[in-house]
Amino acid sequence: MIKIKVPATSANLSVGFDCMGMAVNQYAYFTFQNNSKWLTINGCPKKFQNENNLVYKAFIKGCRVLKQPVPNVKITIQTEVPVSRGLGSSATCIVGGLKGAFEWFHHPISKQKLTQLAATMEGHPDNVAPAIYGGVCMAFNNQNDQVHVVKYPVNSIWKFLAIVPDFKISTQEARTVLPEQLSYQDATFQISHCLLMTHAIQGKRFSTLKEAMQDQMHEPFRKHLIKGYDQVKTITDQMHGILYISGSGSTLMLITNNVNDRQKIAKTIQNQFKKWQVKPISIDSNGIQSEVDINE
Amino acid sequence: MIKIKVPATSANLSVGFDCMGMAVNQYAYFTFQNNSKWLTINGCPKKFQNENNLVYKAFIKGCRVLKQPVPNVKITIQTEVPVSRGLGSSATCIVGGLKGAFEWFHHPISKQKLTQLAATMEGHPDNVAPAIYGGVCMAFNNQNDQVHVVKYPVNSIWKFLAIVPDFKISTQEARTVLPEQLSYQDATFQISHCLLMTHAIQGKRFSTLKEAMQDQMHEPFRKHLIKGYDQVKTITDQMHGILYISGSGSTLMLITNNVNDRQKIAKTIQNQFKKWQVKPISIDSNGIQSEVDINE
Repeated sequence: MIKIKVPATSANLSVGFDCMGMAVNQYAYFTFQNNSKWLTINGCPKKFQNENNLVYKAFIKGCRVLKQPVPNVKITIQTEVPVSRGLGSSATCIVGGLKGAFEWFHHPISKQKLTQLAATMEGHPDNVAPAIYGGVCMAFNNQNDQVHVVKYPVNSIWKFLAIVPDFKISTQEARTVLPEQLSYQDATFQISHCLLMTHAIQGKRFSTLKEAMQDQMHEPFRKHLIKGYDQVKTITDQMHGILYISGSGSTLMLITNNVNDRQKIAKTIQNQFKKWQVKPISIDSNGIQSEVDINE
Repeated sequence: MIKIKVPATSANLSVGFDCMGMAVNQYAYFTFQNNSKWLTINGCPKKFQNENNLVYKAFIKGCRVLKQPVPNVKITIQTEVPVSRGLGSSATCIVGGLKGAFEWFHHPISKQKLTQLAATMEGHPDNVAPAIYGGVCMAFNNQNDQVHVVKYPVNSIWKFLAIVPDFKISTQEARTVLPEQLSYQDATFQISHCLLMTHAIQGKRFSTLKEAMQDQMHEPFRKHLIKGYDQVKTITDQMHGILYISGSGSTLMLITNNVNDRQKIAKTIQNQFKKWQVKPISIDSNGIQSEVDINE
């Protein structure tokens, strides 16, 4: 049996619009086994238990890249990553399915190649790169679909809190609210702040990270899609926190520099939003993990 | 006598539009001495030997910040930095004049404070930050005029060649040719490539730095102002070089990873552009230097 574990990812990191992401310790687990039928999928809603399942599509893509016939397969999915909440659930499926095919045929694949294949399926690599490499990554694919990834060290002082609303936001909808263009001034603002952010997360200074994480490209437009955003923002500003919209939402990610503040903020937010999931999380530094159990 | 040495700077570094710069080993030297007359300025064209001289204006600004009367002063300027060629000549004057005032009144000033004062005079800190800190810097000032600076290590493998045309380009003119807006796609391209650039200059891989240094914000528009750009670009592409427009031009900066290539490229370009200055340069890692000679 092939077992694969892929971390959830939080893209954009405020000022890294469409090119940065961070792996976190919420996981999707996928197993791939021999099957007497051509396809069985367990562990997800009935409507996804068919050939349109993203894990299976990625598995097929992997087989095609390897020029191998698609085998009969039983896929089991067990995931802690909520769907359409801005935590990279589709990236976990794509990365897991591709890696499953390479493991199936005992074919090693580099992280870079896996990122390239996954980014081509996903359209952009900001979630798939950290899902594969772990940690905080910048990634882009060039016009030849070659992927470039930079992984940044993160100081252990930073503590994270995932604030997951009880509603979804479709990536499609979140794209629609964005303008098509921005001013040169805003672009320079974004570039310089993103450079400061990748520097600040390696350091310990709260005020520097807070200064850096002032997005001009998507949060001013997307925050209106997240009912409760203003309330949460006010709480976090008052209580020594930094807030950003994870991916295209609905999840809000909070960063602070001590566990006590995190706990207090979590309590305050949970009290006001009883149906939301408010959970402390950590960075996953390893990225995708896989093992082949020959006894099963 | 107060002696101050300020390095020339090459801003933008291709993809770091308006927020990055690099100090290089071409210097402006300024001395400040007691004077029986209220002002004497030597070492620059006659038309700048008056109270509108930028060094003197910065000196006055420094005196005002210190709440001190402006003393009678003799300023001597000796500079290797060409004017209006995209090598930060005005930044050298501003930084030199400000520092001169602080030395005059025996008042220490931090690099950050000096950058803040100079950036306010210059309008932006992309030249003044490296002139003060040395090396490759990202810098911006926020809405409260607080300056943030990140200094990046540079691998010693990189060799630089300044290609200085025999004509000036006014910053004003170079601003006019730029569009007012850019697409989200181009902005994301620029952010990700700038992040890759700051990573690549710390490493040794030529192909990565070349991939990173593909500006979308100013070079496509400004290259038309530099007669000979296309020729130089063709030569450098063919001969293993990376080219960018220094500041807003006219200087073109070439980067390669060995001195032999640099020498060959220099020879080829000098042959085609006899009146241009083509000179190997190095990064200045120290930034501004000053000394007070009490015997003079």
